[in-house]
Amino acid sequence: MAEPKWLDARELEAWQGWLEVSTMLNRRVEQQLKDEAGLSHPQFEVLTRLSAAPGGELRMTELAGAALTSKSGLTYQVAQLEKTGLVRRRTCESDERGIIACLTEEGWRKLRESAPGHAALVRDLFLDGLTRKQFTAFAEGIEAVRLRLRCQE
Amino acid sequence: MAEPKWLDARELEAWQGWLEVSTMLNRRVEQQLKDEAGLSHPQFEVLTRLSAAPGGELRMTELAGAALTSKSGLTYQVAQLEKTGLVRRRTCESDERGIIACLTEEGWRKLRESAPGHAALVRDLFLDGLTRKQFTAFAEGIEAVRLRLRCQE
Repeated sequence: MAEPKWLDARELEAWQGWLEVSTMLNRRVEQQLKDEAGLSHPQFEVLTRLSAAPGGELRMTELAGAALTSKSGLTYQVAQLEKTGLVRRRTCESDERGIIACLTEEGWRKLRESAPGHAALVRDLFLDGLTRKQFTAFAEGIEAVRLRLRCQE
Repeated sequence: MAEPKWLDARELEAWQGWLEVSTMLNRRVEQQLKDEAGLSHPQFEVLTRLSAAPGGELRMTELAGAALTSKSGLTYQVAQLEKTGLVRRRTCESDERGIIACLTEEGWRKLRESAPGHAALVRDLFLDGLTRKQFTAFAEGIEAVRLRLRCQE
C-alpha cells in the first residue's frame, strides 16, 4: 500500500459530519418507529421494500441486497415480523431452495398506519434542511458513493 | 399535525440511498477497525476526538455531544477503553462532579497505528467516489442537515 494520505480538515469535517448526522437520524427514526409502530428500523424497511415489490413479496436473497442489516440480522428481523403476523414466509414454487417473504394483510395495515408519520419525520429531519439545489447535489453525491460501494461488495 | 406529504420518488431514492450507504460504510469501517485494531467504531471515534482536544482530554459531557452512541453507550465504550489501557478517567479538579477522559500513552500509540489504515479506507469508500465539485456540494448538504438536527436536539 502506498503512503496513506491523511484526511485534511475539510474531509475530516465532512466525514465526522456524516457520522454525526447518521447517528442522530438513526436514533430519532428508531425511537419514533418503536413508539408509534412497535417496529425496529430494519423491520420497517423490510415492510417498505416488500410493499414496493410486485404482489408485496420478494425472495429473501433479493431482500438481503437492500437490507439495513447483515444476512443473519435479516433472517432474525423477518422471523420477528412473522411472529407478529406482518410477514409470511413460503417456499418458492419454481425453486425449492428459494424462500419468499410476503406482506400479510396485517403487514399492509401496519405500513399504512405508520408510513405517514415516518415520512413526515424523514422530511422534517432530512429533506427540509436542504434547499432544492442542495437536495439535488446531495442526492447525486449519495448516489455516487452508493454506486462505488456497490461495485466493491 | 397537517396532512403528511409523502416522499416522492426522488426523495425516497435519496433517503433509501442514504440508508444503504450508511449501512455499507458502517459495516466496512467496523470490520476493518475490529480486524486491524481490535476496536469498535465508537471506541475509535472516542480516541480520535480525544486526540484532537488540548492535552488529549475531554470531559465526558463534552465527549457525549459528539459521540456515535447514546450516553449510556458512551460510558460503556469508555469503560472498555479504560480496561484495555487506552483511556484513563479522572475527576475534574475544578468540578468534583465532572469526569475527564484522557488518552494514555498506549492510547496515542494505538491511534497512531490504526489511523492511517482507517483514513485510507474512509478515503477509498467515501471520498474517492466524488469529484471535487460533488464533494463540496455533498459536504454542504451534510452540514445543513447536521445544523438542523443539532437545533432540534
